[in-house]
Amino acid sequence: MGSDHSLESGQRYFPFDDANFRWHGIQPREYKDKESDSFNWRGVTRHTLLKQSNGPAAFEVRYFEVAPQGYSSLEKHEHIHAVLILRGKGRVLLGDSVYPAKAMDFFYIPSETAHQFINDGTEPFGFLCIVNLQRDRPRPLSPNELAAVQSLLASSQDSLAE
Amino acid sequence: MGSDHSLESGQRYFPFDDANFRWHGIQPREYKDKESDSFNWRGVTRHTLLKQSNGPAAFEVRYFEVAPQGYSSLEKHEHIHAVLILRGKGRVLLGDSVYPAKAMDFFYIPSETAHQFINDGTEPFGFLCIVNLQRDRPRPLSPNELAAVQSLLASSQDSLAE
Repeated sequence: MGSDHSLESGQRYFPFDDANFRWHGIQPREYKDKESDSFNWRGVTRHTLLKQSNGPAAFEVRYFEVAPQGYSSLEKHEHIHAVLILRGKGRVLLGDSVYPAKAMDFFYIPSETAHQFINDGTEPFGFLCIVNLQRDRPRPLSPNELAAVQSLLASSQDSLAE
Repeated sequence: MGSDHSLESGQRYFPFDDANFRWHGIQPREYKDKESDSFNWRGVTRHTLLKQSNGPAAFEVRYFEVAPQGYSSLEKHEHIHAVLILRGKGRVLLGDSVYPAKAMDFFYIPSETAHQFINDGTEPFGFLCIVNLQRDRPRPLSPNELAAVQSLLASSQDSLAE
């Protein structure tokens, strides 16, 4: 079984450290690897709660945390996301909509739907993101798609701030 | 795509209702179906956040809530669980250990490991549970296994209450 965390050591109980919003035994890592230079993002960490390259789980469970004024990469892909917001507030771009997000809101991100998690605030914004273990790589948007999204995000910032 | 909730209607945003600890668009259901008469459980509801019988997700995301003095079925199976506690406090039986559980603690429940979620308190105890879409059915424990677990649970109740 391949894994990048304490599952290899047999750990089954990962107590939560409220003061630091971290799990004992789970090390925060880089959000994206080096192959992802075509993406733009800021202030995001990755906490892998469950990943087994050859184990019995057909899925991965990750927690991503977006620092104040940070954002995840704007991307799309064939695989879907199940997302549960766990900390703070932010905006979620999903296709042609932008939603206000707060702790415990749930999002389904369908195939080939552009998405981005944005933290306009002053506190960390964190979410659980569950994906298939076997999945395609994220792709950036085309220049035309990007222009449409930027316009949408600008107007949502105004309306959500009202 | 088969589904038992609002994904069929295209819903992608499931805002959380803090006052009721429920998601808009997700209906609570019975914990176990009629075929599960061999299991003993009390005061548990099932909230299916994501389930697609023929969709792109290889996993299901469910929230289970255990009422005060309730407990989930004591069972084991080949498939694994990834569990994130979301509400309240309880005890988690996991193989030959019993852990105190509070919001945001994460548990990995390995294959063929007996497990049960127990609420000894006065507030609801709720947890997210992620499983493979394709999986075996849970099985009850043998009488010998059951006796060992009951002894373990009795002693853990004493030590956790100290």
